[in-house]
Amino acid sequence: MNLRIPGPTPVPAEVAQAGAAEMINHRGPEFAALIKRTTEGVKTVFQTQNDVLTLTTSGSGGMESALVNHVSAGDPVLIVTVGVFGKRFVDLGNVYGARVTELAFDFGSAADPARIDEALRADPSIKTVFVTHNETSTGVTNVDLPEIARIAHSHDCLLIVDAISSLSSIPCPVDEWDLDVVVSGSQKGWMVAPGLAFVSVNERAWERQRQNQQPRFYFDLQRAKAALESGQTPWTPAVSLYFQLDHALGLMLAEGLDSIHARHKRMARMTRDGIRSLGLELFASEGVESDTVTAVKVPEGIDGGQLTKVAREEFGTVFAGGQGELRGKIFRFGHLGWVREDDVQQGLQALEGTLDRLGYRVAGRA
Amino acid sequence: MNLRIPGPTPVPAEVAQAGAAEMINHRGPEFAALIKRTTEGVKTVFQTQNDVLTLTTSGSGGMESALVNHVSAGDPVLIVTVGVFGKRFVDLGNVYGARVTELAFDFGSAADPARIDEALRADPSIKTVFVTHNETSTGVTNVDLPEIARIAHSHDCLLIVDAISSLSSIPCPVDEWDLDVVVSGSQKGWMVAPGLAFVSVNERAWERQRQNQQPRFYFDLQRAKAALESGQTPWTPAVSLYFQLDHALGLMLAEGLDSIHARHKRMARMTRDGIRSLGLELFASEGVESDTVTAVKVPEGIDGGQLTKVAREEFGTVFAGGQGELRGKIFRFGHLGWVREDDVQQGLQALEGTLDRLGYRVAGRA
Repeated sequence: MNLRIPGPTPVPAEVAQAGAAEMINHRGPEFAALIKRTTEGVKTVFQTQNDVLTLTTSGSGGMESALVNHVSAGDPVLIVTVGVFGKRFVDLGNVYGARVTELAFDFGSAADPARIDEALRADPSIKTVFVTHNETSTGVTNVDLPEIARIAHSHDCLLIVDAISSLSSIPCPVDEWDLDVVVSGSQKGWMVAPGLAFVSVNERAWERQRQNQQPRFYFDLQRAKAALESGQTPWTPAVSLYFQLDHALGLMLAEGLDSIHARHKRMARMTRDGIRSLGLELFASEGVESDTVTAVKVPEGIDGGQLTKVAREEFGTVFAGGQGELRGKIFRFGHLGWVREDDVQQGLQALEGTLDRLGYRVAGRA
Repeated sequence: MNLRIPGPTPVPAEVAQAGAAEMINHRGPEFAALIKRTTEGVKTVFQTQNDVLTLTTSGSGGMESALVNHVSAGDPVLIVTVGVFGKRFVDLGNVYGARVTELAFDFGSAADPARIDEALRADPSIKTVFVTHNETSTGVTNVDLPEIARIAHSHDCLLIVDAISSLSSIPCPVDEWDLDVVVSGSQKGWMVAPGLAFVSVNERAWERQRQNQQPRFYFDLQRAKAALESGQTPWTPAVSLYFQLDHALGLMLAEGLDSIHARHKRMARMTRDGIRSLGLELFASEGVESDTVTAVKVPEGIDGGQLTKVAREEFGTVFAGGQGELRGKIFRFGHLGWVREDDVQQGLQALEGTLDRLGYRVAGRA
């Protein structure tokens, strides 16, 4: 199968094999060396000197940890949303009693920094801003993230960034952009199976945590930091996924961050060009299309559910459908992580075959 | 290495290999079939018709989920403790604002059902009881769990059981014993790498959840149940660990629950006999020694830290030290999951060699 979804992404065979190594004691010296090495590697990819904690959980658990460690019940927060995953922060905020102001942009668009500035001027009590760097549900990158960080800080706000489907594939230099809390997840550009989330925390965020009243236990980042100092995790870690991560980081650092970013840019362009040449329309607005996942409008007269089903069953290629209100209206073509020209080419051919099979005719072709 | 700790336990090579299979879409038909199959298998091992949810988290996350789904802030709860993991429920209860009554038994002892009855009579406002089935930190099994369940229900209490290091190795028939909420974890008798927790929920517990005011999101069992109905999980699952679990369940069901339980009983007896024959003393009181992990008093004049270090470095065997107040006073010999006579024999020989190396002389030997 050609797994062309925006995560979990294909795991290279050698990474998967590394995960099958003999089990070790999570309280012993081998694990201490392992977590020290992976933490250094993850920090390199985050381009940060901040603390980075690795949690045994999915990306959503990483998001929960970013919220419960920094937001007390009753705290006013601004949540900038451009799709389903932005709205996940809204759900989280509501569940944990934050006073949520949602600044929603149309699905397909990116966030406008000027409107964030406006929203923060309008309510100076807000001291926390949430934003999605790359919105997996719509194939949009908030390309103005550095400017958003500048604005958040000018209002004395902490900025919490969901970079789950961006960081490790497209540039997200945490220190250079001065991002306070950043979340990523193993099953995206990291080429590792799902189950680990990474959360970076700077001094501004640690300071906030010391005052934060929100109850937290499993997702408590202070416990994670204290345990890490002795080469451990507070709770039994997903050891086999650390084995995979260790190997995958070796591949990533050998390829180099710049090359990885350039490759993702190239794969994304190739995908978009191929899709346009089939006469299909991209969902994301021009200039903010994601370099990790391309959202495509399901053409008139074609059933979105049929499209992904036929592609999978007859063309060996797995695309993702639309989520929430986008179900049936778009499908998504993932091109992040362990992806090369051949994978994209094969994905485009599968798409063409599927459309043909469903009776769609590319304009200008026989 | 002979990994003789009470988890993570050795993963059979074929299970580890199963985890290296090609990645799949967690929202597709393959995963739906997989989670249906593993859920059925896990239910068989739990010996229950109740719902069982699989969460991507460690055992402690499973414990958190058991608490936050059933206990609101301000709720009075009775927490029965016989060791470190019982006290983890106390920590959790305190963090999440429960009004905690701890009924603590001496480390090394099991819980006395009569005293639980007394405690519940003394405070009829208590409607939730927490108990550890098998206390990993002390090598004690609360053998009176069925009686504890009867008492809890006679006081109209919900019973929440940490069976992380028991269920799958020693009998814990959830339906027969009428246990309301039961937690287990993949890295114990299940022979799977760490990262999955299992939580069974009966009708009494679902009813409680519908009234429960505690905020919860990642660990929300109602979301997990709703997603399971369409063959999914609410958040991206640790797919590679499901692959492992699927294979391990095949091995377990082929061996049969009765055989698995008998094997663990045999391994435990062999361990205890061997340890006594070295002139060492067990930490657990007679009659309540765990069949999954044996806690052993560090003999006078021997340094506990040295013991585990020498065993690992010179005899290729990993024992666990004592936790919390038991650090340096005991060490622990795990015999759960994928364990056979040879493993125990080798562990005992390593122990004998280590003691000899540290200058300990077995009474009556040259």
